[in-house]
Amino acid sequence: MQHLNNQHLTKHEIKTFDNRYRAKLINSLSGFKSANLIATYDDTGNTNLAIFSSVVHLGASPALVGFIMRPDSVERHTLTNIKQQKRYTINQVTADFWQLAHQTSARYAQHQSEFQQTGLTEQFIGEIKAPFVKESPIKYALSLKEVLPITANNTLMVIGEITDIICPAGLVKEDGYLDVESAGTVAISGLDSYHKTTRLGRISYAKPEQPLSFINLDGKPTS
Amino acid sequence: MQHLNNQHLTKHEIKTFDNRYRAKLINSLSGFKSANLIATYDDTGNTNLAIFSSVVHLGASPALVGFIMRPDSVERHTLTNIKQQKRYTINQVTADFWQLAHQTSARYAQHQSEFQQTGLTEQFIGEIKAPFVKESPIKYALSLKEVLPITANNTLMVIGEITDIICPAGLVKEDGYLDVESAGTVAISGLDSYHKTTRLGRISYAKPEQPLSFINLDGKPTS
Repeated sequence: MQHLNNQHLTKHEIKTFDNRYRAKLINSLSGFKSANLIATYDDTGNTNLAIFSSVVHLGASPALVGFIMRPDSVERHTLTNIKQQKRYTINQVTADFWQLAHQTSARYAQHQSEFQQTGLTEQFIGEIKAPFVKESPIKYALSLKEVLPITANNTLMVIGEITDIICPAGLVKEDGYLDVESAGTVAISGLDSYHKTTRLGRISYAKPEQPLSFINLDGKPTS
Repeated sequence: MQHLNNQHLTKHEIKTFDNRYRAKLINSLSGFKSANLIATYDDTGNTNLAIFSSVVHLGASPALVGFIMRPDSVERHTLTNIKQQKRYTINQVTADFWQLAHQTSARYAQHQSEFQQTGLTEQFIGEIKAPFVKESPIKYALSLKEVLPITANNTLMVIGEITDIICPAGLVKEDGYLDVESAGTVAISGLDSYHKTTRLGRISYAKPEQPLSFINLDGKPTS
């Protein structure tokens, strides 16, 4: 790790950067980001698939998940479909297919499904109308709750409630923790860097004046 | 990876789960989350430090970053201070101090600074009034833009504009990508699992009908 030669970039300098340079720098600042494919469908049965690095947990009760999008971005079919159908799925991206997932960010025409274009497989489960990504081990269906405008930069937060969770039973641990690392789920940094992970540990709930201790994968004390 | 024995949990089943079990499960569904310490200060010079896993990139121009919080949560001093002072810092958590960072989530009294309680070091840089975390190699100061209510579950998204970036010069690559992995930055899954990363690769901007190719850390073709 290199702590020497710290640099201090000011708002003025940041503004003078070339747009693409600035986009890559600023996108790196939030740290590691989630890697998810959002799958939608339209009235005529066309499906759509797009990778997002902005999926964020909002709350567990009700179970709400949000993601950020630009109305004018390449993923605009995702937004149109979600507004129309109110149903969509979120599918975790793993090390087995991260390159196919990244390819969904290409600017395909509306009639082209990113499933067909990338070779990822549509999967329909039960009565759920939105497609899942078969290759994804951890995935869930959502029902649209709200499209919240973020006026500060004309983006939107799309908020959905989780209606169905599909995951390998063995990855749900005794206390409810879902072992996304063992599922092969990847993380993103910046706009285009993908990373697998190695667990440092699970750690106990923090209380004042009480030392932390490691817990095992099932959430129990290790000693 | 275990694909056998997939389970399908419905909304009804999710609702019947014990609150803590549900919280751990639902918190795992967004995938890997960013690990950041948010540092604030109040009128009397008290500082406050809290770990957040919901910091999310909103846009590069202007450079906006958001995070989600509950108004009634343990981190409420963070919100009070940000509303008062309009200035705060976000500091990436690394493998060198992730346990101290986790300890900031303990429910300390308002007059107790999590800096003192955990042993993390306050650092003041230039004219910036908000404290930074000295141990954190990648950090930035923000100016509050908006506190956006998320009515769906009574949470808030706090949105700030980046005013100053502090980072090791050597980690900013030629095209602007900031190498957070080499900085030792960690990712979080669920509520309490911390992970270091191994890069799978940086990959080219996706275009229809064009194969993806790996790019090097500076963003240039590898072949």
